[in-house]
Amino acid sequence: MGLPDNCNLDLHSKWKHGSRNLITDVPGVKVGNVTVNDGDIHTGVTAVLPHEGNIFQDKVMAGVSVINGFGKSIGLLQMDELGTIETPIILTNTLSIGTAWNALTKYMLRQNEDIGVSTGTVNCIITECNDGRMNDIRGLHVTEEHVEEALKRADVDFEEGAVGGGTGMVCLGLKGGIGSSSRIVKVDEKDYTIGALVMSNFGAPGNLVIGGKHYDTSKYDQFPKKDQGSIIMLIATDIPLSERQLKRVSKRAMISLGRVGSYCGDGSGDIAITFTTANRMKHYNEKNILDTKMFFDENIDMVFEAAVEAVEEAIISSLWHAPTMDGIRGRRMLGLQDFIRIYGE
Amino acid sequence: MGLPDNCNLDLHSKWKHGSRNLITDVPGVKVGNVTVNDGDIHTGVTAVLPHEGNIFQDKVMAGVSVINGFGKSIGLLQMDELGTIETPIILTNTLSIGTAWNALTKYMLRQNEDIGVSTGTVNCIITECNDGRMNDIRGLHVTEEHVEEALKRADVDFEEGAVGGGTGMVCLGLKGGIGSSSRIVKVDEKDYTIGALVMSNFGAPGNLVIGGKHYDTSKYDQFPKKDQGSIIMLIATDIPLSERQLKRVSKRAMISLGRVGSYCGDGSGDIAITFTTANRMKHYNEKNILDTKMFFDENIDMVFEAAVEAVEEAIISSLWHAPTMDGIRGRRMLGLQDFIRIYGE
Amino acid sequence: MGLPDNCNLDLHSKWKHGSRNLITDVPGVKVGNVTVNDGDIHTGVTAVLPHEGNIFQDKVMAGVSVINGFGKSIGLLQMDELGTIETPIILTNTLSIGTAWNALTKYMLRQNEDIGVSTGTVNCIITECNDGRMNDIRGLHVTEEHVEEALKRADVDFEEGAVGGGTGMVCLGLKGGIGSSSRIVKVDEKDYTIGALVMSNFGAPGNLVIGGKHYDTSKYDQFPKKDQGSIIMLIATDIPLSERQLKRVSKRAMISLGRVGSYCGDGSGDIAITFTTANRMKHYNEKNILDTKMFFDENIDMVFEAAVEAVEEAIISSLWHAPTMDGIRGRRMLGLQDFIRIYGE
Amino acid sequence: MGLPDNCNLDLHSKWKHGSRNLITDVPGVKVGNVTVNDGDIHTGVTAVLPHEGNIFQDKVMAGVSVINGFGKSIGLLQMDELGTIETPIILTNTLSIGTAWNALTKYMLRQNEDIGVSTGTVNCIITECNDGRMNDIRGLHVTEEHVEEALKRADVDFEEGAVGGGTGMVCLGLKGGIGSSSRIVKVDEKDYTIGALVMSNFGAPGNLVIGGKHYDTSKYDQFPKKDQGSIIMLIATDIPLSERQLKRVSKRAMISLGRVGSYCGDGSGDIAITFTTANRMKHYNEKNILDTKMFFDENIDMVFEAAVEAVEEAIISSLWHAPTMDGIRGRRMLGLQDFIRIYGE
Repeated sequence: MGLPDNCNLDLHSKWKHGSRNLITDVPGVKVGNVTVNDGDIHTGVTAVLPHEGNIFQDKVMAGVSVINGFGKSIGLLQMDELGTIETPIILTNTLSIGTAWNALTKYMLRQNEDIGVSTGTVNCIITECNDGRMNDIRGLHVTEEHVEEALKRADVDFEEGAVGGGTGMVCLGLKGGIGSSSRIVKVDEKDYTIGALVMSNFGAPGNLVIGGKHYDTSKYDQFPKKDQGSIIMLIATDIPLSERQLKRVSKRAMISLGRVGSYCGDGSGDIAITFTTANRMKHYNEKNILDTKMFFDENIDMVFEAAVEAVEEAIISSLWHAPTMDGIRGRRMLGLQDFIRIYGE
Repeated sequence: MGLPDNCNLDLHSKWKHGSRNLITDVPGVKVGNVTVNDGDIHTGVTAVLPHEGNIFQDKVMAGVSVINGFGKSIGLLQMDELGTIETPIILTNTLSIGTAWNALTKYMLRQNEDIGVSTGTVNCIITECNDGRMNDIRGLHVTEEHVEEALKRADVDFEEGAVGGGTGMVCLGLKGGIGSSSRIVKVDEKDYTIGALVMSNFGAPGNLVIGGKHYDTSKYDQFPKKDQGSIIMLIATDIPLSERQLKRVSKRAMISLGRVGSYCGDGSGDIAITFTTANRMKHYNEKNILDTKMFFDENIDMVFEAAVEAVEEAIISSLWHAPTMDGIRGRRMLGLQDFIRIYGE
Repeated sequence: MGLPDNCNLDLHSKWKHGSRNLITDVPGVKVGNVTVNDGDIHTGVTAVLPHEGNIFQDKVMAGVSVINGFGKSIGLLQMDELGTIETPIILTNTLSIGTAWNALTKYMLRQNEDIGVSTGTVNCIITECNDGRMNDIRGLHVTEEHVEEALKRADVDFEEGAVGGGTGMVCLGLKGGIGSSSRIVKVDEKDYTIGALVMSNFGAPGNLVIGGKHYDTSKYDQFPKKDQGSIIMLIATDIPLSERQLKRVSKRAMISLGRVGSYCGDGSGDIAITFTTANRMKHYNEKNILDTKMFFDENIDMVFEAAVEAVEEAIISSLWHAPTMDGIRGRRMLGLQDFIRIYGE
Repeated sequence: MGLPDNCNLDLHSKWKHGSRNLITDVPGVKVGNVTVNDGDIHTGVTAVLPHEGNIFQDKVMAGVSVINGFGKSIGLLQMDELGTIETPIILTNTLSIGTAWNALTKYMLRQNEDIGVSTGTVNCIITECNDGRMNDIRGLHVTEEHVEEALKRADVDFEEGAVGGGTGMVCLGLKGGIGSSSRIVKVDEKDYTIGALVMSNFGAPGNLVIGGKHYDTSKYDQFPKKDQGSIIMLIATDIPLSERQLKRVSKRAMISLGRVGSYCGDGSGDIAITFTTANRMKHYNEKNILDTKMFFDENIDMVFEAAVEAVEEAIISSLWHAPTMDGIRGRRMLGLQDFIRIYGE
């Protein structure tokens, strides 16, 4: 749902959000969360499906920007080389990417008997942030079943905040997590949607900025005030964009980070991925020359600006929806709503 | 001088500025401006010298980030491949880069008789923004003598605002130009300096943000409100950084752009170059294995954050120091101080 | 004409060449040379026109690979960001790129009155190699008139060898220069063309390989045997390729360099540019969503292999057509035919 | 052992090999293989240790080149951002990278109790090629125990050919696998070593070139003659190189591919990683400014050329040492020695 319209936070947005104000406003996109909270365990899995069909057979065009590469995401090299995504996207904790990869691979092998026999292998997209500040990450508590379940649950409605892969995340001195939002842009007299989903785990305590207003989130937490963590930013759209343009949109997610108070710290794996459901690439084609569509670059600023806004709101929404949590080693991270309640705006 | 301490604009800076609050606080760095105002002509040249010696013989280590490549700068390919700058850096208008290249090349040939005879050629660094909104850019009014003169004038004190290469620039709906600033960081018990100099010509009217506060600069100008132009951002330091680290610092200049209201529009050539005077590369060496220094990445955030702040202040300073100007085709761009005087904060 | 069919050199090519065996086999592409030989002066200009219309108004899609960035080419940043070429491409000596840029800019301004007034500036493509081993490069003997003349002479027939921008070039211990070639590939039952044009100035003496056969070209020259120089490789095609794919094709030009004996020495500016005449981008569009075409990646190997072959033959052809030359400071570089005549195959 | 000195294959090498002619000629580097052959199963694991100490605490400087990104390797993003390797490097089949990641992560967690608690996570390096042409890759037969065992077996002596991660690989129409080689270069009067290890699985049948000689390896195999597969190329050295330089060396591995007959086909994940044991980065440092060493670029060609040779020989050595194998679905791939025996040179 993004930021509720009646909350007091003003992001100075220029573009209207879609009906759900979620990435799933982009037709076909679905999201599923599995949340694991048990004692010192605070972790989980989020799965994002680019469309409802067989993604391996019917790939979506995509572009990635590695804003800061202190991260372990899998599958980005091939996404960059071929400009496509051919699996769902998994978001989880850093040390669980091997398990997530195994689970997603088995899921893909079941759906596609040609993989590894009559055609090549499959490029699973696994992204991650380090939830070790709240979660017993060394315990490797994410299982292949969690990943399967997140894929199964994928739907147009889903929860934000400390859920799914975002369960144990920490962001800008507050409890982070999963956030989402969308924007509508009119192109050639037709409405299109840009949706964002983030897993927020970045930024130094004390640096939070919301709509230009600074919040000193460093004042309640006794742990070291280091800029740590990472952020995964997914941008989906039904606007036809070329691979180059999808990469340009991804790159602008760094502007969203700047708007909320990040300077992209050394230890932050800041990754942005943009895909369009409007340019599909079939795994098998009878012809070698394929029709595709792109955007007139001269007017692409509306796409850039709406995407920057969607990612910015998704980040703040991830904070807004996350309640205060007590994590491993006695660390308590306030949710944004609790922080405001206690310390005022 | 950057933003005067007694102006009312608050950038929420964490790091102190140096004594001049200019890029020339970095020891050895010098800047010279030549300003050309004559009827419809509003253009010029800024020259930045990395140090006072022979730069070709004693190169500085450097790293570049092409944040948005809608630009024509010369010399960045080799800077990227070899990690060095071996000439002064020239900033001028887009259509004058050929002339600037010729002038700087002749300057370098005069200083170095080995170039093109017993050693290779020389990689001149020429950067540019399009001042065609205020200046008769098609008239090609910058001459080789202007470039020579800017190099000659280079000193530790220099003017900001609508001067030098920044004379005819327009930024975020106001008069742009040359701006500078510096920050001091303490590393291993010693003070080091990070300086920034920008030529600001970017951003959509109405999008200006100063210290989180939004200014609607779109309300007085009747021309199309497109996000146009570009920005050149130079960052100098005496902190020892590796080539990879200099590139990382350059990349963070995009955060500064986000802080002041840019989303890096399609048509904006946004280029950041960082160099360190602490790692020098001799053109001739007797040994093949050379000593150099780098920064412990784990603690590099202070460098990132101070650089982001210096660039942000340099941008706002370029606006602050630029007076209102009447340009070609009857276009008037307000200076920031005039804008605030008329429309209030 | 590439390598004559009756010469004894066998490159083991798999793909047939076009009717001219020149880059101009790609419909619309034209090439013009201006050669300047006068005492110690051995230099010139080559101009390549992507098509016969107004290139600024009707851009061609393009992708560049900076294989080794020890080079000063102008215009590659924007080509990379926007995926287009909007001017002819000039090839000349390193120290003449400022002059070439001025000449090409004036040519573009004359053709397009909107540039710098009602639209932005123009991204001229200027490429270069250092001909200082044969030419008095410090004398800056290329004039704007030479560039104008090369543009005017552009035609489907043109000379190879020590002509145009290649006049003073040296390659793999022999006289280098301009070379060209083409290949025909059948796609979806239709013939398409891939053409290459190179300006060869790279490689260490003694390292030449032709069709797998090693030639010790180091034995006659008394000058230092350093791997110096550079190579500009242009690949043109009428096959529809996306920006990403054009970049992939450009990247494969490094394989061609490997086949003829280069290891991409430190000082070699090795640049490959691929453009397709089949994807045109209008400067002005009424709609924002544009139709374009791309190639089915799964079958793109035929394009890769044919491009690698075309570039390889263009390099060897540049040597084949270059006669022996006596250059500045008494340096004599043998042409390949003379070398074989004297030292045998 | 690389190619035996008495074999008839001549690669026209200029540089001498080290005493073992293996990557382990670089002091400290060790390699371990686990080979799994059982019915339709032909796969395995190779582990490369950059040095004998705790690699996480004492990282080696590294640089990667993604020559063609059709691959799923893990850990390259962070290697690129930080310029270091902090774990052993695992080579295995594509669908086993999740398992390999899990195994290596547990190995690292056991050795370092601070990971995920008082410091960040760990960036495991897992590389892969698709052995599905010979191996039942969908069966996921590599286990965590195999990875553990390969790490345990790591030593200065190791086998080449159809062993370890290379067990089921196919290259240029012949049986591929693991190959290695080394070169000695004298720098400032001291001998240094450059070693290479490859897992070869690339190239189209019929395209093999050895020392300039073409071998038609397409004539005996009835399966489709597609250019498939991939290659992982590791280059180790004790020469001090900067991160930028390590990346430059990696990039030149593409030349080695060109020399042996590849044009870097679409479906080939061609990855080169270079690390130096001479520049170590401690995980914890008391000072922020660190001493490091780099190479004088002007003379780095000897490093480039020796690295190109070492990789080229490692590739041919992987073919030389691989015996003929009967794989899944009745596919027989000849070893190079058998091929020459049958079809002659």
